[in-house]
Amino acid sequence: MDENVSTHYSGPVCPLPLTHTGQIVMGHGSGGKLSQDLIQRVFLPSFDNPALRAGDDAALVLPNQSTRLAISTDSHVVWPLFFPGGDIGSLAVCGTVNDVAMLGAEPLYLTAGFILEEGLQLEILERVVASMHLAASEAGVQIVAGDTKVVQKGKADLLYINTTGVGLIRPGVEIGGANAHPGDLVILSGPIGDHGISVLEARGELGFESHIQSDIAPLNHLVSAMLQVSDQVHVLRDPTRGGVATTLNEIAVQSQVSIILNEGSLPIRPAVAAACEMLGFDPLYLANEGKLIALVGRSDGERVLQTMRLTRYGEESQIIGEIKDTPQGRVLMKTILGSTRIVDVLAGEMLPRIC
Amino acid sequence: MDENVSTHYSGPVCPLPLTHTGQIVMGHGSGGKLSQDLIQRVFLPSFDNPALRAGDDAALVLPNQSTRLAISTDSHVVWPLFFPGGDIGSLAVCGTVNDVAMLGAEPLYLTAGFILEEGLQLEILERVVASMHLAASEAGVQIVAGDTKVVQKGKADLLYINTTGVGLIRPGVEIGGANAHPGDLVILSGPIGDHGISVLEARGELGFESHIQSDIAPLNHLVSAMLQVSDQVHVLRDPTRGGVATTLNEIAVQSQVSIILNEGSLPIRPAVAAACEMLGFDPLYLANEGKLIALVGRSDGERVLQTMRLTRYGEESQIIGEIKDTPQGRVLMKTILGSTRIVDVLAGEMLPRIC
Repeated sequence: MDENVSTHYSGPVCPLPLTHTGQIVMGHGSGGKLSQDLIQRVFLPSFDNPALRAGDDAALVLPNQSTRLAISTDSHVVWPLFFPGGDIGSLAVCGTVNDVAMLGAEPLYLTAGFILEEGLQLEILERVVASMHLAASEAGVQIVAGDTKVVQKGKADLLYINTTGVGLIRPGVEIGGANAHPGDLVILSGPIGDHGISVLEARGELGFESHIQSDIAPLNHLVSAMLQVSDQVHVLRDPTRGGVATTLNEIAVQSQVSIILNEGSLPIRPAVAAACEMLGFDPLYLANEGKLIALVGRSDGERVLQTMRLTRYGEESQIIGEIKDTPQGRVLMKTILGSTRIVDVLAGEMLPRIC
Repeated sequence: MDENVSTHYSGPVCPLPLTHTGQIVMGHGSGGKLSQDLIQRVFLPSFDNPALRAGDDAALVLPNQSTRLAISTDSHVVWPLFFPGGDIGSLAVCGTVNDVAMLGAEPLYLTAGFILEEGLQLEILERVVASMHLAASEAGVQIVAGDTKVVQKGKADLLYINTTGVGLIRPGVEIGGANAHPGDLVILSGPIGDHGISVLEARGELGFESHIQSDIAPLNHLVSAMLQVSDQVHVLRDPTRGGVATTLNEIAVQSQVSIILNEGSLPIRPAVAAACEMLGFDPLYLANEGKLIALVGRSDGERVLQTMRLTRYGEESQIIGEIKDTPQGRVLMKTILGSTRIVDVLAGEMLPRIC
C-alpha cells in the first residue's frame, strides 16, 4: 500500500496503529489490513507453498493425478454464541462449507474441533451441535472427524469451534481469485451487512430493534446451480470478515485488475442502512455469512444472474459492478452522486469476534 | 462399562463424578471415559456417519473411486506453550501428522487455525510458527490453509492451535482399529510417558529435575518403513491423551478382542518411572506424542520390529503383548509378579491440557 493511496482511505476510521507493536491486537483477527500484515510477516515466510500463497478462501491441492481438492479451515469465536438467525454452530458449518465452495468445489467432509470452557452448560453444547447437524444436513456434508479439548474456567469464552472442510473440484472447473478478466461482471448474491448487524443486536449494542437476522447459509447448492449454466464463472468469494470492500480488494490484487462498483446497485436492507448510519459503519465492511460475490464473463452474466435468482439464497442477486484493466489492484466506486472514490480494505477492527 | 468391571478399575483415582452433571468438566477433555461419554451422548447422535463411527485416529473417506483419504483434526491447548523437547507448534503439527499416519496414510496437507489472545507477544507466535515449520518440513507435509482469530485478553490462554490433516492411503493398505486379529503381536515404538512428565516439569509440578524431554515426533516415516516390509500391519494407534491403557482399550472394543500385555516388556525410562511413583501416576495413562502401537500379524512381527528399530523414532521398539479371542473388549496385564489385572480406560482427568 503506497502512502499516496492510503491518504485517500475511505473505510471506517482505524482505531489501531498499523505499526508493528510487538503484540497481537484485536485487529489482527479482523480479516483486513492487520490480518494481511500478520500473514505476510509471520505465516507466509514459514509456511510458504503454492496452495497457501494463492490466497483464496480454500487451498487447491492435488493428492493424486485424478483428484483436485479444496481445503479450508476457520476457527469460530463469535460472541455471543446465539444471535438472530444463527449461532456459532451454524456459522462454523456454513463458514467452512462456503469457503470450500468458493473454489467451485463440492464440499464433502468437515471436521469439528471444540475448545470448551470448564463449567459450560452441556445444554448449550447440545444446542450448538444440533445446529451444526442441521446446517451440515442442508449443505449435504458429513462431519467425519472431531476433537474436544477443555480449558479451565476463564481460559476461553464458553466455546470455540474450528471447522475444516474438504471438497472435490469437478474436472473443467477453474475458479480462483486470480482469474478475473477485464469485462467480467460483478454479481452479489443479496443484501449486505445482515450478519454484522444481527450480532451487534444480540450484543445489545444496536440501541434499537432492527429485526435483522443473520444471513448465515450454506452456499454450495447456489454455486452448483451457477456452474451448471456457465463455464464463465471466473471468481467466487464470500465477503465475510472485512466485508465486500476487503474481499473485492483481495480479488483486484490477485488478478491485477480494477473493480468498479456502482453504489446505486448495492443491495442493502433499509434497517441495515439505518443502523450503519446511526453507528457510523460503512456496510461495505460489514461481515456477511450467506452471500457470495461472483465475477462472471460478460456474455454469461445475465444467465448466471437469472439462475442465481431462482435459488433459495440468491433471490436478491444483483450485478453491482464490472472489471476493468486499470488502475490495477484497486477497487473504485461510482457513487450515487456521480463521483468516484477509492474503496480500500478494512484497516483496524470494526466489530471484533463477528465470526 | 458394567458395574462389575468398574469396581476392578486399576487406573488413576477418578477425581470427578462420572454422572451427568450438566456441565463440562476438565475430564471431558481427557481422552478417557468422560470424553467417550461426551462423544456418545452429544456428538455421535448428531454427526453420525460411518467414517466418524469407526472411531479411529483419522476418518477414512472416499471422495472419488480412485482416492482414499485419511482426515483428522485436533485442537491444541497445551500449557505451558513451551516445555522440554517441544512446544505447542511442534505438538500441533506432529499430533495431526501422526493421527493421519495411523490409518497407514501418507500425510500431505495440514491446515492451521490460530486463536490468539489479545496482547500475545508477537515473538511468541513467531517462535511457535517456526517450530511448526520445522516439524512440517521433517514430516514432509505442507501447511496449505490457515486462519487467525483474536479474542480479548482473558478469553484464551495466549494461543490455541487447531491443525487438521489430510493424507492419502495407498492401494492395498487396510489399517484400522477394528482390524486386530487374535494372534497379532502388540509392538510399542519406545518408552512411554515422556511427554506427560516433560509438561509436568515445565509447570514446575514435578518437584525435581527429571531431564525428561517430550517425545514429540512425526511418525509418518516410521509408518512408511513398516508398511514397506509387511502387509500384516493391522492396527496403528498413537497413545496420546489417555495413554497406552486407554488406546489399547479402544482397540480391544473396536476389534472385539482381548489384549494381553506383559508388564515386564513395557519400556519406561527410569526417570519417568520414578516421577510416576512419587506422584502416584500410572505411566500407562500418561500421554505420548511420538509413540505408536502396532498390531501386527505374528508371522511378520519380528521383521516389523527390526525395521522399526532401524528408524529414528523406533529404535527402542518392543513387543509388549499379544491379541487373544477373549475376554472380548478387555485389556489385561500380566504383572511382573505373575498375576493378571484388568487395565481400564482413563476415568477422570490426570493431567489437564497436556496436548
